[in-house]
This record gives sequence, C-alpha cells and structure tokens, in this order.
Amino acid sequence: MENFVYQNPTKILFGRGMEEHVGEETASYSKKVLLHYGGGSIKSSGLYDRITASLKKAGVEWVELAGVKPNPRLSLVYEGIKLVKENNLGLILAVGGGSVIDSAKAIAMGAVIDGDVWDFYLGKGEPKAALPIGTVLTIPAAGSEASTGTVITNEDGWFKRAVNSELIYPRFSILNPELAFSLPKFQVACGVTDIMAHLMERYFTNVTHVAFMDRMLEAAMKTLICQAPIVLEEPHNYDAWAELMWTGTIAHNNLLNTGRVGDWASHDIEHEISGIYDIAHGAGLAIVFPAWMKYVYKHDINRFAQWAIRVWNVDMDVFDPERVARLGIERMEAFFRSMGLATRLADAGITGERIDEMASKATDGNTRRFGNFVPLDKDAVKKILLLAEK
Amino acid sequence: MENFVYQNPTKILFGRGMEEHVGEETASYSKKVLLHYGGGSIKSSGLYDRITASLKKAGVEWVELAGVKPNPRLSLVYEGIKLVKENNLGLILAVGGGSVIDSAKAIAMGAVIDGDVWDFYLGKGEPKAALPIGTVLTIPAAGSEASTGTVITNEDGWFKRAVNSELIYPRFSILNPELAFSLPKFQVACGVTDIMAHLMERYFTNVTHVAFMDRMLEAAMKTLICQAPIVLEEPHNYDAWAELMWTGTIAHNNLLNTGRVGDWASHDIEHEISGIYDIAHGAGLAIVFPAWMKYVYKHDINRFAQWAIRVWNVDMDVFDPERVARLGIERMEAFFRSMGLATRLADAGITGERIDEMASKATDGNTRRFGNFVPLDKDAVKKILLLAEK
Repeated sequence: MENFVYQNPTKILFGRGMEEHVGEETASYSKKVLLHYGGGSIKSSGLYDRITASLKKAGVEWVELAGVKPNPRLSLVYEGIKLVKENNLGLILAVGGGSVIDSAKAIAMGAVIDGDVWDFYLGKGEPKAALPIGTVLTIPAAGSEASTGTVITNEDGWFKRAVNSELIYPRFSILNPELAFSLPKFQVACGVTDIMAHLMERYFTNVTHVAFMDRMLEAAMKTLICQAPIVLEEPHNYDAWAELMWTGTIAHNNLLNTGRVGDWASHDIEHEISGIYDIAHGAGLAIVFPAWMKYVYKHDINRFAQWAIRVWNVDMDVFDPERVARLGIERMEAFFRSMGLATRLADAGITGERIDEMASKATDGNTRRFGNFVPLDKDAVKKILLLAEK
Repeated sequence: MENFVYQNPTKILFGRGMEEHVGEETASYSKKVLLHYGGGSIKSSGLYDRITASLKKAGVEWVELAGVKPNPRLSLVYEGIKLVKENNLGLILAVGGGSVIDSAKAIAMGAVIDGDVWDFYLGKGEPKAALPIGTVLTIPAAGSEASTGTVITNEDGWFKRAVNSELIYPRFSILNPELAFSLPKFQVACGVTDIMAHLMERYFTNVTHVAFMDRMLEAAMKTLICQAPIVLEEPHNYDAWAELMWTGTIAHNNLLNTGRVGDWASHDIEHEISGIYDIAHGAGLAIVFPAWMKYVYKHDINRFAQWAIRVWNVDMDVFDPERVARLGIERMEAFFRSMGLATRLADAGITGERIDEMASKATDGNTRRFGNFVPLDKDAVKKILLLAEK
C-alpha cells in the first residue's frame, strides 16, 4: 500500500425529497448563483420548479445557463464564466448529470482567473482557487458529484481533456434516486458502465498489498451487477436505484483508490472515440474495456483471476488461471451486452478507418505514453482499438 | 434504504513517516495546544520526540496532559478542561488509541462551556461547539480517529456513557501503521474484535434494501479475517498492519452506516461489563457478541445466513438456513478464540454473580430499552449475559 492523504469534504444529502434542501444549502455559500443545467427535461419533470421554489424560499437569486450537452463543450463554459463575472455570482449550482457538473466545475475555476481556463486542461498550470459548487444529481454515472475531476471537450479540434483538483469537490451534492426514474434504458446502461469503469480503472493496479480496497471495489462491482438488471426491468424501483446511485458516488469519490494507483488508459482511449464520434462516454467504455483487458491481462494473471473469481463468480482453476482471467473478461462483456450495449466499434456503427488517427491523438503523435498498469504507446493503443474493431 | 446526510471532514494522512506532518497540520489551527497521551510508551518508542520536534519546527507550543487509561476517566477530562481554559489552548492533540482520542474529544467539548461536560454524556443537552481535535493514532481499534463518538467512564459509580456529535470529528488524523508494531498480541486481538464489532453493529439492521453497504461491510469483515492472523504472526508486517489500520478507520467513520440503522446493543452491554470489571473493551465484545447473536438470530434468519455465507464462507443450505446462521456464529466465535480471546465471562475470570446488577444498570433499572435490531429490556439483557456466562 502506498502512502496517501485523503479528505473528501462533499456533504451528501441522499434520498427522497432531498432537493427541497437546495435553497438552504446554497444560501450558506452565496445568495446569488449560476443555475446551470442541460435541456428541458428538468422543466418537464417539475424538478426545475421545485429547485427554484427552494432557492426563492431561501432568498437566493440566480442567473441561468442551460444547454449543456453530453461531452460538455468549452464554448458554453466560456459563456458561463462571462455570466458569473458580469453578475458577480458566488456559487455554481449544477442540476443534471456528470456533463452539467463537469461544466460547472470548469466555470468555477475559470471565473476566478483572468486567463483561459482551458490552459488547466492542457496541463499549463494548476488552479489556485475556484468558486464553490453545489449539485443536484439526476444521472448516476460520472461520479462528478463528489469527485475532483472535470472533463471538457474543446470543439476546436474535438479535444477532450481532464483536470483534477481538490478545489472542485462540490460543497454539497443532493442525490434523490427518484430523479433518475425517467432515464432512457440506453442512458442507464451507459451510466452503469461508467461506474463499473471507474471501479475497474482503480482495481487494475501494480501496487501490491491493497487487499482492503480490492474487496471494497469488488463489493461495489457486485452491487452494480445485481442492481442494474432490476433498474432496467423496473425503472421506478426506488431501492435498486438508490443502490446504483450511491455506488456511483462512492466509485469515484477517491476513497476506493486510497493507497493505490489506478490505470485510466481506457478512459483516455474512450475520450478519443467520443471526442470524434460524439458517442456516450459509457457506450465507448463498454467497447474499450474488453479490448484493453485482452491486451493487458497477461501482465498480471493473478489480479485478473482474483477479479474473475470474486466479481464474476468464475470457479478457480489452479491449473489454468489464465483461462479463469479470460472467463472473467467474457462475463463482463456479456454483462455489458445484456444491458443492450455494443462491445465492438462496428456494432456501434463506427468503422476502423480513423483508428490510426485516434491512436495518434491519444498519444499526442506518439510522444506521450499513458496508463499506469501497462503504459501504452501509439502502437499499443492501435492494437487495442483493432481488438475493439469488430 | 433510509434517507441520510453524510459528510466526514477528517483529513487522513496515512503511511510511513506521516507523523512528521503533525506540526504543520496542528499549526493550521492553533499555535498553542494540549498534547494529550497515555503512558510512557510513546516516549520509549521515540514517537514523543518526533512529534514534539515537528511541533517545535512549526512554531507550536504545547501543554501536556498524560495518564489516559483504557476506559478513559472523567476526572482526567476535568483536568484537561482546566488546563485548556487556564492556558487558552486552541486544539487538543491526541497521541494514542481510542481512549486518548475519546478523552481529547470530551476535553474539546468541555473547554468551550461553563457547565459540566458530563451532562452531554447523560443526554442533558447537546454540544454546540468544540475545540478542534487532531490525532496521531497508535492503536487500530476504536475508530475514534475519524468518528463522531466518544465514550467516557465516570468513576463515581463506574458509569460508562457515550456522546455522538459531528462537532468532534477530528480535523486531521495521522495513521502510520508502523506505530502499531509494538502492540502486545492481546491488545491486537482486542482491537481487531472492536473493529469487527463496529462492522457487525452496523450490519445487523432492520432496514431493508441496503445491499451496497451490506457488501462494503462484508468486504471490511473479510479483510479483518484475512489480515489479523498475519499481524499476530508477524507483528512487523507493515502491509498487513496497513490493511487493519485503514479498515479500523473506515469501519467507524459513518460511511458504512449510510442509509441504515445499526443495533449497538452489544456495545451497551459490554460497557456494563468493562465499567464494572475494567476489562478491555474488545475483550468484552468477544464475550458479548456470540451471546447476543444466539439470543437474536431468529429475528432475521436471512440476514444471519447471508452474513454466514458471505463473511464466513459457510455453504448455503436452502433446506436449513437456520443452521447456516448458527454456523456463522460458531465460526465468528472460533475466530475470536483463535486470537487468544475468551468468549465466555468465566474464561475471562468473571463470575455470574453481578449479572442482575449489570442488566439493571444497562437498562437504568429496567426503565430503558436499547438495541435497534431487537430492542432489549432488563430480562433480555440478563438472558444474554447468562448465555455469555460459561
């Protein structure tokens, strides 16, 4: 186990009706805020009315910025920063899923500097301050509601890049599983896959003696495997949604990577696919992960076998642990398919013709290696994308 | 799952050498503090010197109060409160195990009021403020390093009572597994049992649909079962100690009871035993838990069977789940015994003659019921203590 420092200050308000507390939570930070969301679904569902009623009751004024899309765009972030500066707003309130929250985090960092917030995403300097962020989560998936991360897409070249900073932990996040009832099945499947991916990125590590967190990660993965089919069959099952939603938060709030170093190559590769083809992040991960695993599993057969046995209930075969590992990968792929997701580029309607371009972009023209479990160069990324092709 | 609010602000600094940061962490709150500890072991181990060197380097002055005993006493808390008020100290720095930290928490609450801090332990009023607390943990067991709890013994009648308040979450806790290397085997066994008890108190709940946290609790229990024998055989095994120490913190930092209501009757019963006989808390829990389980398991055979199967690897017998549950209890008892602990009062040298008195004290003369899984009156407590007798 490696040394670590862990502190997650996000206050979680979880359960039915919890969005009614958004006014008082917001008011404890600022009385004039940016209300940031996506499309009209929060209006048709009545959530918008409940939130603005709560804000009014607490004496909070707001300026609105709607229009966040999946794979949130830098151009809207710039708009948000302008609004915050012009109106002297004191908190960014994100109502939506990971895209809205990631966009809010970018605005929170950009609103307190004179320079360009995109520089942080390019690794030029680190944020030194950020406005406080609050969230009302409607889609369990990205885990952004209690994480240090934000991913933004720059339409100028379709570059998708991430920033991690403790400054952008939301101050509070409101999680009411009922708000997810109306999600389309495809989006549920993508969300579950994203959560599973966050757990697997952490699980596959070269750090030894991480037994406790291995088991915690396995516990979260098994929860997903049990609860996802219930939610897909019964979209109004509060209890199953509650399990999924809380798992999604804990999967990415940095607790489960204490003492270890995650891999994150699959996320980077997926960012190239969704950056170009604008497919959902979770849908891309369901394609990348099986291919990545097939490419790397021989690097640590034992770890893959442990995962296959404990998470996927594969029987141990002491004479052929490699086969045990492969069976785990197969069962994971079957799980993704059982939720209606494609696990090959071709099945998602993506041909292989831009594979070389994606491998090149992911590695900045083969000048950058990434992935901690097995570091990947351009050639390795290309091989993984070819394994994912069809 | 029940609605909940969760926020744990404690900053954890985990790993080798982390105590060298105690000065800078302390200085960010106060430059004049109370240094609170137990006996001379932190001096003979060199820990005292490293901590005071770090405090000096950060420009922090301190007043010392040593002498905390297991089952920490109210009289020493009063001394600490006096010292803090006389010297205008701004933080309580606890160096030791749960007893020292619990004592520090009592001082932190008592130092900011004119009245008697014991009133909080009697349930007369709630704390409204507390001085900040920092800890350097030397014994993985109580989980007090990241919890809201403190348990103090009033020597005037040997009453042992608890307070829970979010105000007494330590601001920072330093966890270096090496500091536990020198613990006697008996104390290790007591610590492991205390951690296991914190997990089991949470596990046995009447709240339904708590699947994710069930699995997380099981993950922590299985970690203990795997790592405790290693630590007992190899006291200098850093990796195994690290797993135990981190499990001990997570077991009691309130994450694992989100959405559920724990039982806590066994803790209350144990407090009566250790209040009278002054045995170690963990030693008392190893005696109370098997008896409590034998008394209550028929209340929810399924939950006990799940626990037996997942935690203790008992094979499911669909035709006799009751037997599965009983086998789980047997295996837990065998685990406690394998660490050298007594699981009956008689084996710990305690006769049954004061059982009626203990049952009466625990229930305030049969006026109070306690325990959420199965509420217990005096008669029930007496039956449990008789099951624990020999």
